[in-house]
Amino acid sequence: MNTQRVIDAVSGARLLQRLAQLATYGGLEGGAMNRQALSEHDFDARAWLIGQARQLGCRVWTDPCANLFIRYDGDSELAPVMTGSHIDTQPSGGRLDGCYGVMAGLECLQALAATGVRTRRPIELVVWTNEEGSRFSPGAMGSSAYVDPTRLAGYRRCQDADGVSFGQALDAHAHRFAHLPLRSTVQAHAFVELHIEQGPVLEQAGNPLGVVSGIQGVRWYQVRCHGAPAHAGTTPMPLRRDALLAATACLVRIDALAQRLAGADRRLTFGRWQVTPNSINTIAGQACFSIDFRHADAAVLEAFDAELVTCLPEGAELEPLFSHAPTAFDPAVIDVLEQACAATGMASQSIRSGAFHDAMYLASHCPTAMLFVPSRDGVSHNPLEHTEPQHLLAGARALAWSLVQLADQA
Amino acid sequence: MNTQRVIDAVSGARLLQRLAQLATYGGLEGGAMNRQALSEHDFDARAWLIGQARQLGCRVWTDPCANLFIRYDGDSELAPVMTGSHIDTQPSGGRLDGCYGVMAGLECLQALAATGVRTRRPIELVVWTNEEGSRFSPGAMGSSAYVDPTRLAGYRRCQDADGVSFGQALDAHAHRFAHLPLRSTVQAHAFVELHIEQGPVLEQAGNPLGVVSGIQGVRWYQVRCHGAPAHAGTTPMPLRRDALLAATACLVRIDALAQRLAGADRRLTFGRWQVTPNSINTIAGQACFSIDFRHADAAVLEAFDAELVTCLPEGAELEPLFSHAPTAFDPAVIDVLEQACAATGMASQSIRSGAFHDAMYLASHCPTAMLFVPSRDGVSHNPLEHTEPQHLLAGARALAWSLVQLADQA
Repeated sequence: MNTQRVIDAVSGARLLQRLAQLATYGGLEGGAMNRQALSEHDFDARAWLIGQARQLGCRVWTDPCANLFIRYDGDSELAPVMTGSHIDTQPSGGRLDGCYGVMAGLECLQALAATGVRTRRPIELVVWTNEEGSRFSPGAMGSSAYVDPTRLAGYRRCQDADGVSFGQALDAHAHRFAHLPLRSTVQAHAFVELHIEQGPVLEQAGNPLGVVSGIQGVRWYQVRCHGAPAHAGTTPMPLRRDALLAATACLVRIDALAQRLAGADRRLTFGRWQVTPNSINTIAGQACFSIDFRHADAAVLEAFDAELVTCLPEGAELEPLFSHAPTAFDPAVIDVLEQACAATGMASQSIRSGAFHDAMYLASHCPTAMLFVPSRDGVSHNPLEHTEPQHLLAGARALAWSLVQLADQA
Repeated sequence: MNTQRVIDAVSGARLLQRLAQLATYGGLEGGAMNRQALSEHDFDARAWLIGQARQLGCRVWTDPCANLFIRYDGDSELAPVMTGSHIDTQPSGGRLDGCYGVMAGLECLQALAATGVRTRRPIELVVWTNEEGSRFSPGAMGSSAYVDPTRLAGYRRCQDADGVSFGQALDAHAHRFAHLPLRSTVQAHAFVELHIEQGPVLEQAGNPLGVVSGIQGVRWYQVRCHGAPAHAGTTPMPLRRDALLAATACLVRIDALAQRLAGADRRLTFGRWQVTPNSINTIAGQACFSIDFRHADAAVLEAFDAELVTCLPEGAELEPLFSHAPTAFDPAVIDVLEQACAATGMASQSIRSGAFHDAMYLASHCPTAMLFVPSRDGVSHNPLEHTEPQHLLAGARALAWSLVQLADQA
């Protein structure tokens, strides 16, 4: 069996070694990563990766959004099966977020090359540009512009904190990699993204592999509560209008709403706070906080939108900041991933993704699903990000199995 | 009657005109004041004030903490009766906080000079340095160092935001006002401070005058709650440790404690917040907030200190930031102030001060009390600070009556 030969050729040691090599581009003291999208560190990492790809005999392209495509040729020119993720990081990130999916994809191509297995369809490893969104906002520009190239013109105008536009950074990439052939969006047969979970669910359940059913939808809001700033010493309680107390009282009502709509399944976070004037001895005149509410069911999100206003204190302002519908992954691809997990002999489970990924955009382009491996203590976006080596290997093997399987489809 | 002649000579128009003149030193567009302690604006205001004092035939001294003393001589060299306040302001303050007490005191001296009334004891108007504490922290350095000169050496090392030490600023004052004779602390017979209320109590009660019974004691604490920073999308609710929710839950317990100890009389404020990492899509890893609790009864404050720790979530850190015992003003001076209010024919009431004042320190030096006039909407530390002109006049008249009365005491 071709799939078994490829799986057996996947090397955990080589995967770890390549992850360590990638971490030298933008690694900080203490183990943190800071490899911002289209920075010099990113360019150096891409140059190294292109070299690795060429050693495997792969062809490499880029596109107008600086996505990289590394193709292991198939027996035909049918639509390729794609895998990949991103190699940009958070400002104080770990070594695995995104990078794991790219390095595991490269390991799959090496296993194919080593065994000489040829699939019917080409298999392409993709590096999507600026997924984190920490240099240029929003994130996932590369995958988003791939599936809808009309988005690129707007993205090019986005600026980083130093005033450099995304367009200028793309031009610098084009200059550095002028030798790469340029191509436009190619229709893919399927897309599989392998990623660390970035949450605690697999670890808690003791399952090394997760087949991702979809990505939660999200609502981001900002609530601004108004009070009357006044002297903490001179203002009797009955005469106060304390914006901070108005805000904290309304948290309880918002949580009750989320519980009613989603029960224990709710994910509700009040992560960002700004109290004005933020002085020990002044009653808060304003309290501003963010709401992050996520759910896999679009109807739950819509009910939250409709009822949220009833939770707010009088005079509060509600500003929607961001909204994304839930993504349901493709049942046929999910089926292949479940078989792949079984083929590795490792326990797996169905899981939904709480975080966004490039696969969210690819799902609108071709049949798509994702594989997760556990994150120790659920930690991500942090230098302490860690996955056990045997879990990293298990994920790469399941990915290899599924890529071969999908690429042999008619 | 001397007192009635002096009261009749107090001019509301002149008082308002001097308040307007004082507001030209450090006045910002839109009516806000920014006259920081020992700034050039403060120096210019002091120079003008010294000129006014000299026109009234008063002698002027300064001291090692740059307090200014303007003496209207008495018939003897007995301990003087002192009045006064401060002329430094908040960064976006009003025209009355502190300034009113100084300008009203100057108006009393002018009424004395105009009528030729001589009291037994000298009467001194004092400008206390750096009451607000907004340039150099802590506040009330001038009055504090006056009653305990050993504090000055420590104060001299305090720095402002630009790295200028209080000592350097005092030296600049000494250079600018090198012509002023220097003196050390003189024992006062009594101290009366006239001030705006900075709260809503007199306005709500419809009383133009308040005789201040004392100043609340205060406790300032900082509470730091710890959680686990984690991804808002990937972390199920049962697995979260959200520092912000731990903090808001403990607010309810702290308020219940304050209610049990002090009932409706409690003054409890959570004014300053810092949430870390303060990101929309990250569960708070730390939430830090301040507690400001005030009460007139030392036993209530001590019980709050003892029980506060029981309100905190596990692992929270409690840091005491500041503590000051309640101040009870002198019954004999209070009695004189009540008579003075009656003599003006305006309604008065007993009131406690929720804010600190220079009188808090003077109370440890000599028999002390305060007079308040209403603040519109209870607003202070704000350009909208306002007191009706007839109330400003009533306060100045009551002050004049009480100064003459106290200065004629044996």
